[in-house]
Amino acid sequence: MSTHDAVEVIHAKRDGGTLTTSQINWMVDAYTRAAVADEQMSSLLMAILLRGMDRREIADWTAAMIASGERMDFTALSRPTADKHSTGGVGDKITLPLAPLVAACGVAVPQLSGRGLGHTGGTLDKLESIPGWRAQLSNEEMLAQLESVGAVICAAGDGLAPADKKLYALRDVTGTVEAIPLIASSIMSKKIAEGTGALVLDVKVGSGAFMKDVDRARELAEVMVGLGTDAGVRTVALLTDMSVPLGLTAGNAIEVAESVEVLAGGGPADVVELTLALAREMLAAAGRGDIDPADKLADGSAMDAWRRMIQAQGGDPDADLPVAREQHVVVAPADGVLTRLDALSVGIAAWRLGAGRERKEDPVQAGAGVVWHARPGDTVRAGEPLFTLHTDTPERFERALASLEGGYDVAAPGTTYTPGPLVIEAVRG
Amino acid sequence: MSTHDAVEVIHAKRDGGTLTTSQINWMVDAYTRAAVADEQMSSLLMAILLRGMDRREIADWTAAMIASGERMDFTALSRPTADKHSTGGVGDKITLPLAPLVAACGVAVPQLSGRGLGHTGGTLDKLESIPGWRAQLSNEEMLAQLESVGAVICAAGDGLAPADKKLYALRDVTGTVEAIPLIASSIMSKKIAEGTGALVLDVKVGSGAFMKDVDRARELAEVMVGLGTDAGVRTVALLTDMSVPLGLTAGNAIEVAESVEVLAGGGPADVVELTLALAREMLAAAGRGDIDPADKLADGSAMDAWRRMIQAQGGDPDADLPVAREQHVVVAPADGVLTRLDALSVGIAAWRLGAGRERKEDPVQAGAGVVWHARPGDTVRAGEPLFTLHTDTPERFERALASLEGGYDVAAPGTTYTPGPLVIEAVRG
Repeated sequence: MSTHDAVEVIHAKRDGGTLTTSQINWMVDAYTRAAVADEQMSSLLMAILLRGMDRREIADWTAAMIASGERMDFTALSRPTADKHSTGGVGDKITLPLAPLVAACGVAVPQLSGRGLGHTGGTLDKLESIPGWRAQLSNEEMLAQLESVGAVICAAGDGLAPADKKLYALRDVTGTVEAIPLIASSIMSKKIAEGTGALVLDVKVGSGAFMKDVDRARELAEVMVGLGTDAGVRTVALLTDMSVPLGLTAGNAIEVAESVEVLAGGGPADVVELTLALAREMLAAAGRGDIDPADKLADGSAMDAWRRMIQAQGGDPDADLPVAREQHVVVAPADGVLTRLDALSVGIAAWRLGAGRERKEDPVQAGAGVVWHARPGDTVRAGEPLFTLHTDTPERFERALASLEGGYDVAAPGTTYTPGPLVIEAVRG
Repeated sequence: MSTHDAVEVIHAKRDGGTLTTSQINWMVDAYTRAAVADEQMSSLLMAILLRGMDRREIADWTAAMIASGERMDFTALSRPTADKHSTGGVGDKITLPLAPLVAACGVAVPQLSGRGLGHTGGTLDKLESIPGWRAQLSNEEMLAQLESVGAVICAAGDGLAPADKKLYALRDVTGTVEAIPLIASSIMSKKIAEGTGALVLDVKVGSGAFMKDVDRARELAEVMVGLGTDAGVRTVALLTDMSVPLGLTAGNAIEVAESVEVLAGGGPADVVELTLALAREMLAAAGRGDIDPADKLADGSAMDAWRRMIQAQGGDPDADLPVAREQHVVVAPADGVLTRLDALSVGIAAWRLGAGRERKEDPVQAGAGVVWHARPGDTVRAGEPLFTLHTDTPERFERALASLEGGYDVAAPGTTYTPGPLVIEAVRG
């Protein structure tokens, strides 16, 4: 590997240039080894945020992060693999019904997932509300479970893209999170290193999402699809709406319960729609587009896969889920039609109730969260419950209520509400 | 002081906004106290470099750096004060004859100076080649010497603008040196905290200078003159040529010897011209524009002030200066006219010979440096000396010669050479 100098690399990007492959490889490797200091990397990250990176630079940056750690390989499995990644939304429990559903269709799902930070919640936090379930698996356990059950949702090990782990923590405190090259390479380095054969990206758009408008979401999707395709992973992205939260729940145990309803053939229509849309894309990308996942929801095989997946990781699928000690009900102020339910307001309320964490090391409350009893377009009646807030720590109600206030509109009875599409568009390689 | 958050301040500048006075005060203070981390400050510095700062922000940033330490006060002196600051050039020994010359005219010069890093040399390094001379003075010693001698050139104490000291070291390793708001505030915070009543800035332009073109040099000069004026310091800037090195020497002891020649009424014409031009500006700014400094060179009173200034700081003005152990002569390749002598090439050669340092903690060689025997426009003869290189460590000759090569042109005999002006223009408040 050529030797460079951190200041030389910073100057090149600062002055609007394009970094060479050699400069990128050196910088990412030297940073991982702590031969480049945090203050040097953060200055480069700000220059990248403000100057941008071209497709080759982003691919090199991603490859350098992958090369910083181990790379998994599932090609020895008896079935194809497909994974899904969501950029994060409110009430986004889709991974929970989706992974067993796709497994029930004969495609293995090796989902390495994370914990929540901020208002969007984390898949592992949700699953950890199931008594006995554990997120930590060795690579061997993961492989064995993929062969026997066909689906794994577990924590990413420290060996996968360690450069990304270090960079992610740095970006968080240096105001350099919101750069498409850095977001795309962070997500894709982990997913490519994870070794999945196909990948479907759920890029959220709207108030509750990281990307507030469709143009930036599309740009992010295109960069990520390009990175995956170039790395030999069949990659597709769906841009999906996150101006309204998904389903009727945002929290941990309450989202697990809603997911189980979907696996049982019920559940909110939007959660079912998105689960099936993503499953179809995963199956098609894995070469099993001939199978209709709706059949596997209907015949109970997705639910069977769920039960086996939970049991394989020590969880009891029949155990009662934790319930928060305190509830607070918000009633509809008048008869009318709910015409707006803001994802960000709901997400922050759930987070403040204890479903999420402020600092990485904070615990989450399994029972905390928000249930809403109507979705935009539904009729509501004065005095009937609109929201139920759940927490173990009732002193949190006040700040959660402050977030909900102004987060919804009830219009006069008879007002027409026209919903936008849930799946906005697809970006294909 | 209001409380802010580093990421909030970084985001504001990153997104093209203007920082509030409160944000700037908090950020600089918190960084000085180490409550804001290096990696947060460096990301902000890169955002400032790429987004810029308006005049109010630069003034606030400068004021915050001054407020981080002590501020000196010379208003109790029996005479007015004036100081000079050069942005750094090759062979720039002007401070040495200038300070005693201005003192001889009745204006006190409280010059807090620095050591060299890189190719431009440092005033303290030059003076330290005088046997016995010491750079460290207490504030009381400085004040007493200003009253008795009228001129002090000494090291800035740690109490002056400590935020600048910390920021300067950070900028050096994070590729954030070349930002006019940061350069201007760094220079002016120290000069304003130093307590001088008047200030003349020598802003160098050309290959051997930090600013390579007149437009950027003028921009820097205007920002600095504005900062000084707003802080109540009568400030003027001269833009002066640094495409050709000053005088006939670049080093430490050899520059002292050349300065003494000027004080004795001789010396290279360009050094005399610039010394007098800066002296006139300092005297005018200090309200003593009635005095012609050329008289004080001619009558020996500037030399007297020099001798007293050196003696007051323990130096022996009559001692022999150190001489390097080895010399290497470069002869003219042909008869002709020297039409180009590149300041940067000469500066790097002197630096490589040991006159400067690579790392802050490196020592310098008192005797090392380059002497050139002709200036652009002079006739040279084949085989006669063009350069003499001086060093204690002859293994350095090779790299120094490599820097000189290509750094000068000898044209056919009779070629006309028209020099540009040494003082390009003045910028006044």
